[in-house]
Amino acid sequence: MVLALDVLGTFAFAVNGAFTASRKVRLDIVGILALGIITAVGGGMIRDVVIGDVPPAAFTRWYYLAVAAVGALVAFFISRPPRLLYRSMLVLDAVGLSLFCVVGALKAVEFGLSPAPAIALGAVTAVGGGTIRDVLIGEIPSVLTSGLYAIPALLGASVAVATVGTGVGAAGAVAGAVLCFGIRMVGLRYRLNAPAARHHRDGD
Amino acid sequence: MVLALDVLGTFAFAVNGAFTASRKVRLDIVGILALGIITAVGGGMIRDVVIGDVPPAAFTRWYYLAVAAVGALVAFFISRPPRLLYRSMLVLDAVGLSLFCVVGALKAVEFGLSPAPAIALGAVTAVGGGTIRDVLIGEIPSVLTSGLYAIPALLGASVAVATVGTGVGAAGAVAGAVLCFGIRMVGLRYRLNAPAARHHRDGD
Amino acid sequence: MVLALDVLGTFAFAVNGAFTASRKVRLDIVGILALGIITAVGGGMIRDVVIGDVPPAAFTRWYYLAVAAVGALVAFFISRPPRLLYRSMLVLDAVGLSLFCVVGALKAVEFGLSPAPAIALGAVTAVGGGTIRDVLIGEIPSVLTSGLYAIPALLGASVAVATVGTGVGAAGAVAGAVLCFGIRMVGLRYRLNAPAARHHRDGD
Repeated sequence: MVLALDVLGTFAFAVNGAFTASRKVRLDIVGILALGIITAVGGGMIRDVVIGDVPPAAFTRWYYLAVAAVGALVAFFISRPPRLLYRSMLVLDAVGLSLFCVVGALKAVEFGLSPAPAIALGAVTAVGGGTIRDVLIGEIPSVLTSGLYAIPALLGASVAVATVGTGVGAAGAVAGAVLCFGIRMVGLRYRLNAPAARHHRDGD
Repeated sequence: MVLALDVLGTFAFAVNGAFTASRKVRLDIVGILALGIITAVGGGMIRDVVIGDVPPAAFTRWYYLAVAAVGALVAFFISRPPRLLYRSMLVLDAVGLSLFCVVGALKAVEFGLSPAPAIALGAVTAVGGGTIRDVLIGEIPSVLTSGLYAIPALLGASVAVATVGTGVGAAGAVAGAVLCFGIRMVGLRYRLNAPAARHHRDGD
Repeated sequence: MVLALDVLGTFAFAVNGAFTASRKVRLDIVGILALGIITAVGGGMIRDVVIGDVPPAAFTRWYYLAVAAVGALVAFFISRPPRLLYRSMLVLDAVGLSLFCVVGALKAVEFGLSPAPAIALGAVTAVGGGTIRDVLIGEIPSVLTSGLYAIPALLGASVAVATVGTGVGAAGAVAGAVLCFGIRMVGLRYRLNAPAARHHRDGD
């Protein structure tokens, strides 16, 4: 079950990452493949290198690279997503975000990190791949500037970390993922943003 | 004492990093927090991952993340630093640079690196966080283009590495940090730059 | 022999990296040195951190940093490469690409990676340094957008990985490097590109 969700999240991140990249920059098939794969497995690789679980899971379990490559190829061949597909992608991306923040934080706890760093690393797992992609195509990472993306990941990871080892661990992980997903979808629906620094608001 | 200076350097880097980022890009509070923390702990994390000391100190000693987060929040709420505060920040940033280059180089020696790589890694510790921040906000890292920033870090690390294990180790570390700080302040005062490539000077 | 080729590849990448960087951005000598060295050793460092061989070879074998620094200094002092030298550089860069993809993939196999991840990591070894350089100077990495650069690296690594442990290992490694070099030179000669996404071609 977890594996199926993890693979689904990887696939969603790869398709979404490849679409996002190809909308902004003229890329050949190698570039689209590379950016789709990096979006899908980049966050987990940062997490694994930081906690010392090397080679990272993306390199030791064959299906991560395979699923990510298939996802990027799908994006390459469709290339102009119909509106409905695009919306499904945003939902799938929120699913990936929710799964990766919880899985990342729990893996960090398992490797001995305290709660606060584990929560931070869970969020990095969830947003890291998209951040590397944005840096590579010359964009300021959207997680830094726009809307509720990092905050739901941090909250979801917090719930998962707070409940780990309490006997409701599995339920806590699910609750964390559901919370993250819910906040993210509400944010998308109502275009909510986190508060910005004061001197910028002056200029509005 | 070293711990106090290390924490002070982390705080200074976080405030300075958050200020620098928010002057250039419209960021929400998550972006400012993230960039302040990355500026403060990014260099040390690169060092720790490279020498194999994982999870990095920033993730295993709680006060690094906490101090960096407080520093970034201070920058978020002040947002328009008065001139005097801005100058103090430059001095504190030079303190951070001096401490991090020496601490980073000595830690690299401790983990078995030879002098030249240890000196290089000490400088990376000192400039790495700001470099990641600049890349994330779409700026060319200032360490590559402007003034005496990497050179004092390299010199400070060299002094510390040259004197380690000679019986004057502690004094050597202090001398390295003081040298780095002194050159950096002279460079700031007189706006000194390192020599640039010839064909660029032709165009001046 | 392998060592000589490895050092030659490092030198070529450092000169080429420093030239490329200084053509695009106004850099001082520290920036040119840093970017030349990063271009030369960056890909290998990513590989070593990912497979867990830390500290990376670039930090434990003194000649990598030394050769890379000399290469970058050569670029700094020449700064306006004559046409002939520039062409030699492209050839040397193709040599570096061919050597690094094979050496990187074989090292990944040696550290226990399966064929597909090892091939991917071989290509990352070959293109990683130039990618970091491009990100640092604010360019979209050329490997993502232009021509046959990643594909020959992937093919060369594939040949090397496919033949490792078959008794023709050394010949297979040479064949992989020669294949990569040949495709790269043909691509340079005829300005071949990988296929781009469909909706971009529509606009042409």
